[in-house]
Amino acid sequence: MPAYTDEGMWLLNEPPRERLKEKYQFDLTDAWLEHARLASVRFNNGGAGSFVSGNGLLITNHHIGSDALSKLSTPTRNLLRDGFNAATQADELKCDDLELNVLQDIEDVTEKVNAALKGDQPPANAAAARRSAMAAIEKESLEKAGLRSDVVTLYQGGAYHLYRYKKYTDVRLVFAPESAIAGFGGDVDNFEFPRFNLDVCFFRAYEGGKPVAPKHFFTFSKDGPKEGDLVFVTGHPGTTNRLETVAKLEHRRDQTLPFTLARIRAMEAALHQYGERGPDQRRQSSTDHHRYANARKAFSGQYQGLLDSVTLRTKSTAEYDLSAAAAKLPDGKEMNDRYLAAVTKVRDVQKVFKDIEKEYTLIETGTAYASPLFSHARHLVRLTAELQKPNGERLREYRDSNLESLKLELFSPAPLYPDLERAKLTASLTFLAEQLSVSHPAVKKVLEGKSPARRADELVTTRLFDPAVRKKIFEGGKEAADLADDPMMQLAAALDGPARAVRKKYEEQVEEPERQAYGEIAKVRFAVLGRTVAPDATFTLRLAYGVVKGYEAEGKPVPFATTYGGLFEKAYLQQDKEPFDLPKRWLDGRAKLDPAVPFNFASTADTIGGNSGSPVLNRAGEFVGINFDRNRHGLVRNFVYTDVQARHISVHSKGILEALKLYDCPALVKELGAK
Amino acid sequence: MPAYTDEGMWLLNEPPRERLKEKYQFDLTDAWLEHARLASVRFNNGGAGSFVSGNGLLITNHHIGSDALSKLSTPTRNLLRDGFNAATQADELKCDDLELNVLQDIEDVTEKVNAALKGDQPPANAAAARRSAMAAIEKESLEKAGLRSDVVTLYQGGAYHLYRYKKYTDVRLVFAPESAIAGFGGDVDNFEFPRFNLDVCFFRAYEGGKPVAPKHFFTFSKDGPKEGDLVFVTGHPGTTNRLETVAKLEHRRDQTLPFTLARIRAMEAALHQYGERGPDQRRQSSTDHHRYANARKAFSGQYQGLLDSVTLRTKSTAEYDLSAAAAKLPDGKEMNDRYLAAVTKVRDVQKVFKDIEKEYTLIETGTAYASPLFSHARHLVRLTAELQKPNGERLREYRDSNLESLKLELFSPAPLYPDLERAKLTASLTFLAEQLSVSHPAVKKVLEGKSPARRADELVTTRLFDPAVRKKIFEGGKEAADLADDPMMQLAAALDGPARAVRKKYEEQVEEPERQAYGEIAKVRFAVLGRTVAPDATFTLRLAYGVVKGYEAEGKPVPFATTYGGLFEKAYLQQDKEPFDLPKRWLDGRAKLDPAVPFNFASTADTIGGNSGSPVLNRAGEFVGINFDRNRHGLVRNFVYTDVQARHISVHSKGILEALKLYDCPALVKELGAK
Repeated sequence: MPAYTDEGMWLLNEPPRERLKEKYQFDLTDAWLEHARLASVRFNNGGAGSFVSGNGLLITNHHIGSDALSKLSTPTRNLLRDGFNAATQADELKCDDLELNVLQDIEDVTEKVNAALKGDQPPANAAAARRSAMAAIEKESLEKAGLRSDVVTLYQGGAYHLYRYKKYTDVRLVFAPESAIAGFGGDVDNFEFPRFNLDVCFFRAYEGGKPVAPKHFFTFSKDGPKEGDLVFVTGHPGTTNRLETVAKLEHRRDQTLPFTLARIRAMEAALHQYGERGPDQRRQSSTDHHRYANARKAFSGQYQGLLDSVTLRTKSTAEYDLSAAAAKLPDGKEMNDRYLAAVTKVRDVQKVFKDIEKEYTLIETGTAYASPLFSHARHLVRLTAELQKPNGERLREYRDSNLESLKLELFSPAPLYPDLERAKLTASLTFLAEQLSVSHPAVKKVLEGKSPARRADELVTTRLFDPAVRKKIFEGGKEAADLADDPMMQLAAALDGPARAVRKKYEEQVEEPERQAYGEIAKVRFAVLGRTVAPDATFTLRLAYGVVKGYEAEGKPVPFATTYGGLFEKAYLQQDKEPFDLPKRWLDGRAKLDPAVPFNFASTADTIGGNSGSPVLNRAGEFVGINFDRNRHGLVRNFVYTDVQARHISVHSKGILEALKLYDCPALVKELGAK
Repeated sequence: MPAYTDEGMWLLNEPPRERLKEKYQFDLTDAWLEHARLASVRFNNGGAGSFVSGNGLLITNHHIGSDALSKLSTPTRNLLRDGFNAATQADELKCDDLELNVLQDIEDVTEKVNAALKGDQPPANAAAARRSAMAAIEKESLEKAGLRSDVVTLYQGGAYHLYRYKKYTDVRLVFAPESAIAGFGGDVDNFEFPRFNLDVCFFRAYEGGKPVAPKHFFTFSKDGPKEGDLVFVTGHPGTTNRLETVAKLEHRRDQTLPFTLARIRAMEAALHQYGERGPDQRRQSSTDHHRYANARKAFSGQYQGLLDSVTLRTKSTAEYDLSAAAAKLPDGKEMNDRYLAAVTKVRDVQKVFKDIEKEYTLIETGTAYASPLFSHARHLVRLTAELQKPNGERLREYRDSNLESLKLELFSPAPLYPDLERAKLTASLTFLAEQLSVSHPAVKKVLEGKSPARRADELVTTRLFDPAVRKKIFEGGKEAADLADDPMMQLAAALDGPARAVRKKYEEQVEEPERQAYGEIAKVRFAVLGRTVAPDATFTLRLAYGVVKGYEAEGKPVPFATTYGGLFEKAYLQQDKEPFDLPKRWLDGRAKLDPAVPFNFASTADTIGGNSGSPVLNRAGEFVGINFDRNRHGLVRNFVYTDVQARHISVHSKGILEALKLYDCPALVKELGAK
């Protein structure tokens, strides 16, 4: 048998104890796991963080905090560019719509969910029954425990686990460095290594107006990791596709990724152009812009990976091997037949998906109207209709257990800029017309015979910019007729029918049949391999592990870590030009920093987008760094794990302490109490 | 009858004498026209220019000269950024692959071309016969007159004219300002007004090692135009689509433009990313990058125009009106039947075109391998095969009369940067896979199962970077077997079959039937309207005219001209940040400039892309400015002329002289001898 690789984003309730024991002689105890779980935090805007003091202090990435930093900024206070440093707790700034979750426990509810599907139901009924069962489990859990409760689909439908979270919604900004050092190298160096980023941001969780006192938090290591050290990453990897069938991956290669890339490029070009109009526009658009630039690179990397025939050949072999192994089981013939039937089913589903994917993505998931203004309008239109139905019959996002989180988003007072929203709407409406053509009935409804630019002009006259208006409509329910002439509300209402229709098709003809097929595939996989393969990532808490380690690129060794000396050298070589321009504080304070102190480091642990802000821990469960990126060799990890060159990249805990020397933040340093 | 608008890019042999007489009381004499024609110059890299001294001095746009500036630059001599100023004629820099054309005469050869198609031939034969007839006319003309001879298709196939050009290939750089002032505002302000661009560049044409002494050149006006002045533009508008049928325009809206935009965005993103790697990469890629950014804006404007239902409604009405008017002619029934049959034919052709357009564009026109390295390889593969055929049977670009121009391109010693070509190839090969899928036979041949990035790595190991190698293969003909293992040559050879096949389909099933149908439509149009409608633009010399005039935008008046005072104000408001950063010379020399002197101005004349560098003339035929852009309201002019807000933008001749005060170029100023 081959030695284990460090592959795996492991479930906290199915941890890789044997592997760690065998390869690293490490005992993964229940206490270690519980501590790691309760000190790890999910940032619901797409990342991770962790408690690093008994006073509710949290560390995450600057690029995870940037959404809040941008929303807290004004034309005269640019927190994104200039950073922030609260002198006292009273100076900490409340973030309007940031929700944090801490995972309290996990319960396997696979049988409960599947029990709802007894008998041979048509997919439409099965989808409804499954949705209803999930909503009921969540509602019961919410009412019983008072905790946010989500049923998570694992193994593409092979298992269902109930995750219960403690929720924090009073989150305040404590400290952020300047974006020029947090994101040194900007989009140019995104997915590259060596790197030099102080990609950190500190927040504090409050409850009842007082800082939270978490029982579990990570001790901040003053030395951080050395080359060769075993490290752990606890975070919320977003999405991987490693257990998908070859047909599904071919569909991604031939349909989903080209379409997604085209969409992202259209949005990126528009945001780039908007940001270039002037400094103010740049501030307004930079978070969105970076998000699309990052997504373009990530999806490009995935696409290159799938175009390399080696990738799919590996997957074909695995599919064949599993079939062959299944055939050798005691009930081999039946097992293998079931497996092959399920693989065929997934293949057939892609033919249906191909015909509706663009419509579904554009019209229902809303990429055709890429503005929070439309999301708000749609929620207001749908909420009032959905809330009149029983919990189990609603569209999933309107289930009782999700309403609080939804309201937090809907009533957010975070500023929206008309010109920026106009630019985003113009770009996304244009993309809609490009993809479906203006003769498509839904596109006709959207554009009303006008050019996308002219239609966007109309739509941004909406009153939904004002959170008070949104609240009023929400509270007025169906009676809020005074907003009947609002163009965005009208658009959301006019599109509700077509959008629901394509969603129904998707859920009944794609999602549900896929889940059932993957349920069968998972049974075969469990029978052959047991639980030795971790499920694909689902933006839920996972444990990864690996070794701090350099690699070789273009024939030269790339050391495991960078240093502050390297930072200043790189800025010099790039002539201090944006995005390689250092903040004045850094240029002035250079002498205060030890050039030999490590800044960023690389490790082999298995991470993916969504892991941003994940704490990196040592054997003792201490905080030794914070993950913020992968190198480009790691982009293929959506489909296959490799550790030849692929690495995730973290800020070194010693490096963080060194950087804080440049900032006047004695209370923060004291609170970290590094040991 | 409604008063004439200023619409029209008029043929020099069918000038709008009556209109000018009636609307502007201007006598367009033969002498005026001959002078304008012989002093106007075509820059074969996509623009226009004009002689402005008896010593061969030429003025064009900086952005037309930028290709040469970039090719003459090195890591230590950045002419694009820093400008150039030849102290004496001996210091002027020879441009490697710049060809200029001056139009000597025009001959209507419509009957000769159509004579070849006598009888009812199938489209394949008709296409071959037409190609052969055109090549024969051109060859005969070249041999007789020793002039570059091109048969130009006008009215989409309604007329064929033979254009004979004097050719200059020894062109030297005389003067260029810094790109920061030539392109002040960069891509941000492209297609915007007010503008502040010194978008000029001076060259000199040589023959036999001596400056050319043209009989005709424009006198440089020291005062330039005032508001309300009648002005003329002589230049080479590239492409308009105003006479296309509704079905063709719908095809553009639903197929061509979405596809084109997707392609351009993909290339632009890649070039942007490449340029951000560092200052050297930026220098290498900036010309390409601007070209794609400019194209994206132009095509986006076109697309917005076609999505506005008003545009196509106007076209439908015109189509209907022409049909109704035709029916009223003496032989009305027959005329109208012919017209309607032709319109239907164009509609039917689009159904065929839809199926092959992506393949044709990607595989045959070569957008799938967006690198001169591939074009070179293809020419080398095809030239050796084509030259063995009689002139009339060759692919059109290999006809005898075009060979000299082709060799100039093929043997160009202009530098090619492996990393840049790799980036462009990766992006365009990726786009190929996205559009046709990896299961397409031609894509399989191109990628060989590798990812586009990996394939591009291989392709840039080609030896075709070296012009001497290209020359050697060319001279060795089919025998140049020593290059048989060159990856780019292999690719071009492997794709030659599939590319020729799709080209044949296109020429026989799209181009030829369209030409025949438009030939019929033109006959009807001429019968109803005479020659009162100018043909669509074809990158050949045209005369446009209009009035120097401001307009209103967002409720505010936009004055007809900007000033130097406005330039410095704009730089201040934009905090001197790129692309609004002024060169040091300009910051230091500010006091030398009169803030009230006009810098750029707007006029209603009918221009389009390709008109860049066109001289703007006054009634006396003097040079009063140089066109360099349109505002965004003018982007719809591909389909309809409008002068409500649409304007073309020029550098004011007085503004040019004012700017030259900042440069130490007394000889140049003296040579311009402004009056």
